[in-house]
Parts: sequence; C-alpha cells; structure tokens
Amino acid sequence: MQIQGTHYRSIQRLHRGVSVIDQTRLPHVLEWRTLETLEDVAHAIRHMIVRGAPLIGVTAAYGLAFGLREDPSDSGLQRAFHALLDTRPTAINLKWALEQVYASALLVAPNERVNNALQLADQLAENDVTINATIAQYGGQLLYQRWLELGRPSSLNVLTHCNAGWLGCVDWGTALGALYWAHTLQVPLHVWVDETRPRNQGASLTTWELQSHGIACTLITDNAGGYLMRAGEVDACIVGADRVTAIGDVCNKVGTYLKALAAFDNHIPFYVALPTSTIDWSLQEGQSSIPVEDRSSLEVTHIWGKTPDGALQQVQLTPDGTQARNPGFDITPARLVSALITEHGIVDATPAALAVLRNDLR
Amino acid sequence: MQIQGTHYRSIQRLHRGVSVIDQTRLPHVLEWRTLETLEDVAHAIRHMIVRGAPLIGVTAAYGLAFGLREDPSDSGLQRAFHALLDTRPTAINLKWALEQVYASALLVAPNERVNNALQLADQLAENDVTINATIAQYGGQLLYQRWLELGRPSSLNVLTHCNAGWLGCVDWGTALGALYWAHTLQVPLHVWVDETRPRNQGASLTTWELQSHGIACTLITDNAGGYLMRAGEVDACIVGADRVTAIGDVCNKVGTYLKALAAFDNHIPFYVALPTSTIDWSLQEGQSSIPVEDRSSLEVTHIWGKTPDGALQQVQLTPDGTQARNPGFDITPARLVSALITEHGIVDATPAALAVLRNDLR
Repeated sequence: MQIQGTHYRSIQRLHRGVSVIDQTRLPHVLEWRTLETLEDVAHAIRHMIVRGAPLIGVTAAYGLAFGLREDPSDSGLQRAFHALLDTRPTAINLKWALEQVYASALLVAPNERVNNALQLADQLAENDVTINATIAQYGGQLLYQRWLELGRPSSLNVLTHCNAGWLGCVDWGTALGALYWAHTLQVPLHVWVDETRPRNQGASLTTWELQSHGIACTLITDNAGGYLMRAGEVDACIVGADRVTAIGDVCNKVGTYLKALAAFDNHIPFYVALPTSTIDWSLQEGQSSIPVEDRSSLEVTHIWGKTPDGALQQVQLTPDGTQARNPGFDITPARLVSALITEHGIVDATPAALAVLRNDLR
Repeated sequence: MQIQGTHYRSIQRLHRGVSVIDQTRLPHVLEWRTLETLEDVAHAIRHMIVRGAPLIGVTAAYGLAFGLREDPSDSGLQRAFHALLDTRPTAINLKWALEQVYASALLVAPNERVNNALQLADQLAENDVTINATIAQYGGQLLYQRWLELGRPSSLNVLTHCNAGWLGCVDWGTALGALYWAHTLQVPLHVWVDETRPRNQGASLTTWELQSHGIACTLITDNAGGYLMRAGEVDACIVGADRVTAIGDVCNKVGTYLKALAAFDNHIPFYVALPTSTIDWSLQEGQSSIPVEDRSSLEVTHIWGKTPDGALQQVQLTPDGTQARNPGFDITPARLVSALITEHGIVDATPAALAVLRNDLR
C-alpha cells in the first residue's frame, strides 16, 4: 500500500529480523521498529505494536524462527511456540501460523530449523498478500454490485469498524482491501469509520489508511452508526474477523455485534471479509466457545493523543480509582451476517455453505 | 444528592443568579459557576456546562427570568425565549419549561415579570425534585422486582448509558434515581456504565455520581455492552430520555438504540425513565420527526483528560484534518422498549398506554 506515494508492506524482512510499523504511535508518528528476538515479537504482539489477525500470524511465524535461533531443540521449539501463542488468545490466525511453523520445524534437524522457519514465514507473508489481494477483488466486486443495485448513487456509504486494512495484514487488508478494490473500480465511496474504542484503531489507523489512499471518509463515534443506519445514510457495512466458526459465527473487535444488529434491523447488508485461515473448523456456536481476551482497565480509563504543541500525551478520562472491564472482542451470530468474503469466493454464513468451502479447501 | 456526605442540588438559587456545577470539568474538578444573565445561561446550555434534559429546562427558566431583567417588554420576552430555545434543539423539556415561563409572563405587567418568572423557575426546580423522587421510587421498585424474579442473585447487573442522574436533573435523577432507590431497598446492585462517547458523560459523570453514592460500578466502552449481554452479564438496562413521542419512540443520547437492540436480542428488559414533560404529544414516529442535533467534529477528534501531574489537557486523537460527524442523539423505536417509568407510574411504550397516561394528565 501507499504512504505518500511510496509502496510499503506492514512487515518487512531485514537481515536478522523484521521491521514493523509501531501501530501504537500512529497516526501522529510513523515509526518503524526492528524485531530480532522472540521477546521482541511477543512484546510487540502483546502490546499491539503489531495488530490485526493476519499480521499477528505472520509476525508470530518470524518470532518462532527467532526463538529457534536462541534454542533450536524440541523443547526450545515448544517453549517459543507457547510463549507466542499466549500473547493474544482470541485471533485464530496466530495459532494457525504458529502450528504451521511448528510442524515444519519438527520435520527437519535442529540446525536447519531457523532457516526452515524463516523461509516458511516469508512464504506466509507472500501468501497473505496474494490472499488479501483476492479477498479485495471479491469484496470490491460485491460493493460494486451493491452500488449498481442502488442505482449508481453519487456516493456509496460504507460503514466499517476497527481496522481491517493493510496495517492489520501484510498488504491490501481484508475489509479495507475490498474498499480499495471498489475504489479502483471507480465506485464513488464514502466510508463511515467507527472510532473503535478503547484503542481507537478506526480513529487512528483506518482514517489514516483511507486518507493516504485518497478515499473519502468521515469519523464517527461507535455510538453513531445506529442513528446513521436508521437515517438511511449507510448502504453497506464491512468488517474483518479474528475468528469465524464452522457455522459462521464471527468473532471480531468488540462492538461489531452491535453494528450487525443495527444493520439487520435496517435491512443493510453486513459483510465480513477474512482469509480462510481465520475459520476455526473445530468450533460451532461462537459465544460460548471462543476465548475473549479481557484487556487492561487502563485502555478504557486513559487515552493517548497529541497535544497542541505536538507531543504525545496520555490523559486520564475518569475519576481516580475507577474500575473498567475491557473485553477485546464480541461474537456476532451468523444470522446477522449477509456474506463471508474469502479468498475462495463469497459464501453464506451458514453451516452448509461453510461445509462446501471446507471440502474445497481439502 | 450527596457529595462526600454533604447534600447538594445541581442548581442552587443565589441572590441575583443561580449557581451550577460546571459539568465539563468533572470528574477532575468540582467547580461551581454563577449564572446571572441570559447570556450566561445560553452559553452554559450550549456548551454543556449544564446538561441533561430536566436540568436544561429548569436552567433555561431562570435564564428567561434573567433576560426579562434586561428587557421586560413583550419583544424582550420573545427575544429571550428564542435565544434560549435555540441552544439545544433535541431535548423537549427545554421548550416545555420556556413555554411555561413565557405564557405566565404574558399574563402580568412588564414590571412584575422578573419576579413572576423567578418564582415559576423556583417552582419548576422544586417540582423537578418531587417528580424525580417519584420516578426513582417507581423505577427502584421495578429493579427490586427484577431482582426477586431472578431469584435474588448476589448482584443485580444493570447497564446504563450516558448520565441520567442528579447532575442532569435538579436532584435524584431519572435512570440513576431508580438505581439510588433500589440501593435504598437493599438490592445488591452492580452497574455497567457505558462511557458514552464523544463527551464521556458515563465515564466522567455517572461513575462519579455512583461512586459518591456508594454503588458498585464498572466502566465499559460503548462497544462492550453487546458482548456482556450475550455473556449473560446484564440483568436489565435503564436509561433516561430527551424526548419521547406519543407512540413511545425514545430519543436519547446517541448509542441508546444499539443497546436497546442488544437487550431485545438477548431478552433483557430495557427501561426508560423520564418525567412526563419529556413526552412530545405532537409527534408519532420519532426517527423522521425529532430534530437531532449535529454537534462539533472537535468533540470526536479531540478529548479532555487529566495529565499525570494533574493538569487538564486536551489531546487530538486523529490524523490532522480528519472530519467527523457527530449526531448527539438517536431514536429507539418503541418496540424495543420494555417499559417507560414516569412520575405517574410505569406504562408500556405503546400508543394505547400513552393515550391513557395523557388522559390522566389532563
């Protein structure tokens, strides 16, 4: 993707490590960080310096390679695997990527494991780009169809939640990828960006991505989408996913479920864009089975921003001593999802349609 | 209500003016402001130094009295009436209170108008306290019944949005009044407080009120309520209202509709507490008829908080130049409302039940 005319990926391979954008500093500062050890990677994932289910998966794969550099034994492999798996419990791509590197490492001698893991991580990164480009095309086509169906209005108003853009993947993005492709197809887009409390990935990252790409967008609070839908100002919703079950329940950034309810109540299509690696085939009903990360109270009671003199400053929003609960995700039942956009095409969020997809993947 | 053991009202009569709490400085600073002129009052309402539908009504009544002190003529009365009416378009109590003072002023000679208006404003303030105390008792009883119905759990988890407490009224509050009364009835309450972006009345004011009163509460983002409802961690929702139509549609702080959808989807009662002065008998369907205030973009892109050294500081949350849309309210259709709690008892949010209430009021 482009930042001021230059093409970047969100993670870049260096001689010994990888370079990633510190997403906690955006949009005020564009700062690249070098990760060279297992510790670096675990810290970056846990503290959301890198975030987004696909990017977490790829970064963790490199982390496992770095861990093997310190200790390539079976026990070292296992320790590194668990250290990385424990960083974020909800996104399934993390587990999926780690399992691939783990299984592959077991097949080779300890002294070959680092190179083997690095090669596989490189390949996962490349695959992610291809997969996201394909998702973007399917999703972009769907938005194009929606625009035609509405009689080619002068602006197609699409609401998105959180950041499912190239910052959360390696390139393109899932939900935002679909928007980038629709933009290429000359659909006149206007995007409502949910700010996405508590970490404001919408306000900080999605606005920044869309503006960098030249797509018109307007920031709204997470509270406002329902009003805009009732007022007829939303034509479609599109979001990413952190885990999708075999029956089509969607786990995504907390607040997604509320928007899906409002979209359903107002007959607005609600699309979810995801690589098939996001599907957890072992799970059925999502609410009771997906572990939802409870994050720090401080993310709710305090916030970072830029002061008038340009410094980054954290401020407290609440009375001293206020306790907060901070679930990071919620689960949207499949009945509220209009379509799942994957790299293998667009499927209904139903057990039957997903079973067909699963057969195709085998 | 109590602040550290001392009883206060949110608006207090002085010799020439009134004293109000500057609600933009809470929870970090408790600062009283003196309002003595029409200008003072209009500014305080517009900039949300005073807020909450009932308190706005009472404060505006005093504002009209202060305006008459400057110009007690018919044209002065009319100018002051419109200056105050224009400050906030959505809450109906403002119009209701101003109309009462206006009509009463017309009946007396110009030189009697100031005293007449001040007396009426005093009476509106007194009535508001009585009305809110009654709402609190009806609502508290309802929460008590809910607690019994659930088999007296060790904690009744109630979610509330925005601030419908004594800060938004003269004393007691509407939705929070019900909680205060339930607390008196020894219902073991735990309140989920929506932070209520963009102005964070939940994070700043409701947490502060509840903590001052000794009721257990936990702050959540506006995104989190849906997850908690699906997880079975919410037993009831209760909110206030800025305007209710004759068929029971509820206009309240933006985001209320999303919580009502989630409550309905999870079979959780959704209560709305309001004085009958909040009902606009002239309106039927709310979404198309209630004027919803679009507030400043800056409320979304910037936020005030307390720095580690105790100073109040505004920070920017978004990339430079980000545009935001900021509707202040939304409309929850009556079908999602379990009950309306008024000073005349608890009524269904249906045209028939409201028609009976209207007859009783006549």
